Amino acid sequence: MGSHTGKVICVGLGPGDPELMSVRADRVIRGSKHVAYFRKAGRAGQARQIVNGMIGPDVAEYPMEYPVTTEIHFSDPEYNRQLAEFYENWAKKIAVLAETETVVVLCEGDPFFYGSFMHLHSRLQGRADVEVVPGITGMSGCWTATGIPITWGDDVLTVLMATLPEEVLAERARDADALVVMKIGRNLPKLRRALATAGRLGAAWIVERGTMEGQRVQRLSEAEAVVPYFSIVLVHGQGRRP
Amino acid sequence: MGSHTGKVICVGLGPGDPELMSVRADRVIRGSKHVAYFRKAGRAGQARQIVNGMIGPDVAEYPMEYPVTTEIHFSDPEYNRQLAEFYENWAKKIAVLAETETVVVLCEGDPFFYGSFMHLHSRLQGRADVEVVPGITGMSGCWTATGIPITWGDDVLTVLMATLPEEVLAERARDADALVVMKIGRNLPKLRRALATAGRLGAAWIVERGTMEGQRVQRLSEAEAVVPYFSIVLVHGQGRRP
Ligand SMILES: C[S@@+](CC[C@H](N)C(=O)[O-])C[C@H]1O[C@@H](n2cnc3c(N)ncnc32)[C@H](O)[C@@H]1O
Ligand SMILES: C[S@@+](CC[C@H](N)C(=O)[O-])C[C@H]1O[C@@H](n2cnc3c(N)ncnc32)[C@H](O)[C@@H]1O
Repeated sequence: MGSHTGKVICVGLGPGDPELMSVRADRVIRGSKHVAYFRKAGRAGQARQIVNGMIGPDVAEYPMEYPVTTEIHFSDPEYNRQLAEFYENWAKKIAVLAETETVVVLCEGDPFFYGSFMHLHSRLQGRADVEVVPGITGMSGCWTATGIPITWGDDVLTVLMATLPEEVLAERARDADALVVMKIGRNLPKLRRALATAGRLGAAWIVERGTMEGQRVQRLSEAEAVVPYFSIVLVHGQGRRP
Repeated sequence: MGSHTGKVICVGLGPGDPELMSVRADRVIRGSKHVAYFRKAGRAGQARQIVNGMIGPDVAEYPMEYPVTTEIHFSDPEYNRQLAEFYENWAKKIAVLAETETVVVLCEGDPFFYGSFMHLHSRLQGRADVEVVPGITGMSGCWTATGIPITWGDDVLTVLMATLPEEVLAERARDADALVVMKIGRNLPKLRRALATAGRLGAAWIVERGTMEGQRVQRLSEAEAVVPYFSIVLVHGQGRRP
């Protein structure tokens, strides 16, 4: 890699509002010639949409379309096999390109926080120089949208994926001071039951599309049964404060 | 407030590198006429230093100097009394100024994540219009600096303050998949013992001054006994990955 003139820069885009990306991300994107991003097949892709108007028609785009999202359950070995192949193929393509070019990979929120790029990152080790620009997480965008601080004093913050089993969610929710739950989608009914068991349902908020167009902030008890992919459930901490 | 022409904007500055603040924070700061920030008495103030070169000599500055930091223990009622008075006085001053002016308050990282501004924010309710611009947290800056993603699959992330009792730290560290510990300072020996009890000491990293000048990333086992205020301890998650 020492002889390579190119590299990979993965930029965190922040929670959705283009003004919430970092000055560095903004600079890197506007100067890019090769831009890659993940998307669901047939969709525009949230990451790509955030940079609308920031990259010109002369830029080469590499949409990386997931072979599978929720059609196969993640516990099925076939899910794993298809995704591993997908990441390996893209890592190969990007590594070749990055021998001579700077390839910018777009990532929502912060790349190293439950991000898809991490699966390319591990496969690019030893094959390309990789730089990562952190970003504002979706959860920061969401708790800011509620207008209430998330953690005080020595509150313990727990971040959970709603894909976890109901009992785990309930136990973790009970033990947390402040709580963030991501990947809601079809797990919402399970999450509601778990929060009720933990005695935290009444204090829970849901933020849909935080900082994006169509943002919605409400009590979880008032939310509809179906929520968009970009939704986060929050319970604010009540810790020590002078 | 409806008749007020001014307001308060608290901007998250990110972890330290000025290029990691958001495009919005950058714009707000460069357009500011009144800038307030917290600092330890007699110090330059980390928040203020991040914006060096971004605000001109014609800008009115309001350094808010903590009456006490670690001289009195936070469990002492006197600590609380002095800080409450300090926050109340500044809330009053800022509210008056914000009747006609836009007052920008600088905050390291993300303002609603264990931030000092939160104590002004609650006291400004009903007295001024307040806007908050989220920022990249210190922890995002720090895990990015380690070059290793913090959370995978359905890893549970736990964020702890090292000010917690040793037994609590040990129990929480044992139960977490991925771990972030903040406010290290004089709590480092206690934290080391707790991580050892939890069997997590070997996997722990420490990042000092993440993304700032003098950044240092190392295994916690190799770190010195005394670390700067801006230090975060991390244990990376090992969750599911295709
Ligand atoms: C694969 S994770 C990616 C997280 C991202 N790397 C970050 O730092 O926020 C996707 C999940 O993030 C959450 N999310 C991210 N941004 C969001 C936003 N702006 N509003 C609501 N939820 C968001 C949703 O829960 C979604 O299911
Ligand atoms: C009062 S909290 C403020 C947190 C801030 N609002 C944020 O979002 O990161 C201060 C603690 O944050 C941590 N911290 C913040 N930025 C850091 C950085 N760049 N490097 C290391 N630690 C940092 C340290 O543990 C410090 O004790």
